Amino acid sequence: MVDLVADLGESFGAWTMGDDAALLDLLTSANIACGFHAGDPRVMDRTVRACVERGVRIGAHPSFPDLAGFGRRAMELTEDEVRTDVLYQLGALSAFTRAHSTRISHLAPHGKLGNLVVTRRDYARAVADAVEAFDSSLVILVQEGEMAALARERGLRIAMVGIADRAYEDDGTLVSRSEPGAVLSDPDEVTRRTVRMVTEGLLTSRHGKDLPIKADCVQLHGDGPTALRLAKRIRGELEAAGVRPAPLDRVLGLPAA
Amino acid sequence: MVDLVADLGESFGAWTMGDDAALLDLLTSANIACGFHAGDPRVMDRTVRACVERGVRIGAHPSFPDLAGFGRRAMELTEDEVRTDVLYQLGALSAFTRAHSTRISHLAPHGKLGNLVVTRRDYARAVADAVEAFDSSLVILVQEGEMAALARERGLRIAMVGIADRAYEDDGTLVSRSEPGAVLSDPDEVTRRTVRMVTEGLLTSRHGKDLPIKADCVQLHGDGPTALRLAKRIRGELEAAGVRPAPLDRVLGLPAA
Amino acid sequence: MVDLVADLGESFGAWTMGDDAALLDLLTSANIACGFHAGDPRVMDRTVRACVERGVRIGAHPSFPDLAGFGRRAMELTEDEVRTDVLYQLGALSAFTRAHSTRISHLAPHGKLGNLVVTRRDYARAVADAVEAFDSSLVILVQEGEMAALARERGLRIAMVGIADRAYEDDGTLVSRSEPGAVLSDPDEVTRRTVRMVTEGLLTSRHGKDLPIKADCVQLHGDGPTALRLAKRIRGELEAAGVRPAPLDRVLGLPAA
Amino acid sequence: MVDLVADLGESFGAWTMGDDAALLDLLTSANIACGFHAGDPRVMDRTVRACVERGVRIGAHPSFPDLAGFGRRAMELTEDEVRTDVLYQLGALSAFTRAHSTRISHLAPHGKLGNLVVTRRDYARAVADAVEAFDSSLVILVQEGEMAALARERGLRIAMVGIADRAYEDDGTLVSRSEPGAVLSDPDEVTRRTVRMVTEGLLTSRHGKDLPIKADCVQLHGDGPTALRLAKRIRGELEAAGVRPAPLDRVLGLPAA
Repeated sequence: MVDLVADLGESFGAWTMGDDAALLDLLTSANIACGFHAGDPRVMDRTVRACVERGVRIGAHPSFPDLAGFGRRAMELTEDEVRTDVLYQLGALSAFTRAHSTRISHLAPHGKLGNLVVTRRDYARAVADAVEAFDSSLVILVQEGEMAALARERGLRIAMVGIADRAYEDDGTLVSRSEPGAVLSDPDEVTRRTVRMVTEGLLTSRHGKDLPIKADCVQLHGDGPTALRLAKRIRGELEAAGVRPAPLDRVLGLPAA
Repeated sequence: MVDLVADLGESFGAWTMGDDAALLDLLTSANIACGFHAGDPRVMDRTVRACVERGVRIGAHPSFPDLAGFGRRAMELTEDEVRTDVLYQLGALSAFTRAHSTRISHLAPHGKLGNLVVTRRDYARAVADAVEAFDSSLVILVQEGEMAALARERGLRIAMVGIADRAYEDDGTLVSRSEPGAVLSDPDEVTRRTVRMVTEGLLTSRHGKDLPIKADCVQLHGDGPTALRLAKRIRGELEAAGVRPAPLDRVLGLPAA
Repeated sequence: MVDLVADLGESFGAWTMGDDAALLDLLTSANIACGFHAGDPRVMDRTVRACVERGVRIGAHPSFPDLAGFGRRAMELTEDEVRTDVLYQLGALSAFTRAHSTRISHLAPHGKLGNLVVTRRDYARAVADAVEAFDSSLVILVQEGEMAALARERGLRIAMVGIADRAYEDDGTLVSRSEPGAVLSDPDEVTRRTVRMVTEGLLTSRHGKDLPIKADCVQLHGDGPTALRLAKRIRGELEAAGVRPAPLDRVLGLPAA
Repeated sequence: MVDLVADLGESFGAWTMGDDAALLDLLTSANIACGFHAGDPRVMDRTVRACVERGVRIGAHPSFPDLAGFGRRAMELTEDEVRTDVLYQLGALSAFTRAHSTRISHLAPHGKLGNLVVTRRDYARAVADAVEAFDSSLVILVQEGEMAALARERGLRIAMVGIADRAYEDDGTLVSRSEPGAVLSDPDEVTRRTVRMVTEGLLTSRHGKDLPIKADCVQLHGDGPTALRLAKRIRGELEAAGVRPAPLDRVLGLPAA
């Protein structure tokens, strides 16, 4: 079993991003933008409704407050600023899950905030504190690093996200986007890596080393027809390899959401 | 018994508004800004905490999305835009009430939105829909008009707010701010009107007519030392007249929050 | 001669709107978003540069401050708020025209502000005051109504915009978008109307009446392949009818920009 | 002669910051917020007008785009993002100087951006590029560091700002605000340091060393009665020491603005 997750609801006002409707059919979970980097209340409302209609689990995708930068630019905030910004966004999304008689099941920090919780203990602590204050049963989507370590220390639930289209260092961390070869674009390679990661728990590092990688969920993308085609193919080959797509609670053996 | 309520948490970032700490000691309920006209996540967090420490009940104070205009400018939104904007703000505030182990007990639309739900059925419906979707036990603070009428039709909880420093028409609606004499500034008169409204249920209209006015709560202000002095005096004279300040749930005979 | 104008630079941050590059080849003038409804400093910079490279004249496209509503929602502002908001946007755009060694040649209020200056004298006055304070040689793009009347009174330069894909009332004003049949979508009809408007100065009203319509410029659209194809066809048929596309200064016989 | 400068126009919407009216009487130059950290179009308009009425020179005070953080939080922007953000703000302010028949005479990056141009070559270059593109005669207010060095290389005009209420390292840079003792609060000491800096060109470093400090202008503050009293006293003691307050163009011997 593996969870298939993607970022959804990243339109804003008159602007559309991604083909959420097409992507939804491939997913078991969605990370939904909460208004700080994308997503306005209408987008959030209809994205939550669409997830409910298809049985896709809902996660919060909180960001730095930076609409113009789409949450991709580092901001030097205090720990309390990150904590309260994340709380605000969790709460905002939860109004729409309440309105649609469901709940938030996980949280995945977006963009640069997502990158920084891997390396910065203060930001990781801010996110962990927000989760504990809001709903300590939320699953935090992580890669290896500070966020994962801290969540384990505190007994918070985590799910490991495998990112098949990114190169990995030998220590299991992602190669920085600024380095050449950090992002893999060959669909054959990405598909093969995904299936191997999920079925064998192994991923080849940039230096050719076999890394043990536990992937509770696999990150898909839906921006543009190429990405969508690849997402469809990955799901297809996983199923062909006997892997059943399933929401995180089942993958992790948690009580049903 | 009467509830004493004021708008709180209307600072933003580096800017301070009002003397919330001083005002809090006079209140039984607070309307807390949710980020659309004022209030940022830090302000919301510390305002909720301060309310909890003093046993002051917490209400959401949602607004049109207009920080530069402080929510005081009319916006022509669709009903769905008002509904989802109110939901978003209710949710955002609820993250902080959860973090401080309490809950939102009421909602009072802010500024121009608060004015327009009195006269516009579509905006009133949008607020009612948001309340029903979020938590139908919330009390809506109202004056006579569309919002009050609709809430009664639907069986939603309402509390009548008496505004002692505003002139009233003979039909029990407020004299528009744009007319001379709409706002009363003489502290003696405002205090006298408040006490009479609460103890006798009567208020003199601008044309000298005695109006029956039910005031479940009295609106106080804390912007500037004069307002604060008046708020203190009003509370003092109400108590001297045997009126006990009490949170809305007790005034309305609801189950404890 | 006729000026061919369209709204450009309406992307924002990570979001793209329209195919500006394709549209630019068809235009003689562009209305450029200034950050209040769309357009961020990067978008403004590259849009101005692209216009300069193709000799397309640059106009400011100021809006109500409403990114989430794309400037399409009415806001009740004071005259001074509209005036200063328009000034701010004119100035912001002018930094990029200075940086690219050109200047702003016209102004076209965007969206709902553009609709309201037709009927509201106070908003029209606010725009006229901003133009006079900033650069009284700017041409204001107008339809018949308050803005046109006021600009004529004050001796400000105006250009009449013909909108071939909208139905007109018998008095020469546009049929409101909320009425059925307000927007014309048949490409044959829109093209025919455009050519007739420009070559004969006549347009058929919704009730079949021939209206005298002076069109100094024709509004084109570039949102989506259909719109772009229509824009290309309109330009082609205008040229086939012997109408030369030319920037506003030449159409109006003004000194070169 | 020395220029006396302070940050002005840092109110926003319904929020007031500082006592600009009182401070204006003490100044020869003002750094005016441009809407990204503070200042809205109304505030900008009336601040420019007030400066014109008192003959105070006008400077742009551009910031990172961060209203909630008042421009005090570091943001990791590209050089092009900083350049275009600064251009946008310069342009916006210039609309108000045009409306009041004056011009922008200088530029002082605000808050964290102001700190970072001291140490980051890319941000300094972005500001220098914006100034060159907009108006290369603008004076850039600087302390020693990358911005000053780059401006000298390019032949841009600079003025050295002496900050009497901050401790200096032995190399002439400011002690970081995060270190104890970075901000001096004793009014006697701050006044004495200011006068010595201006009259003798010397300032005592945190380690007791006498540093040669050229101060073309002195930074005053107006937030709160204490700051205002100190500003008044500094101006008084400078005049008593024979130093004439004068705008930057005279201090620097430039052609009159």
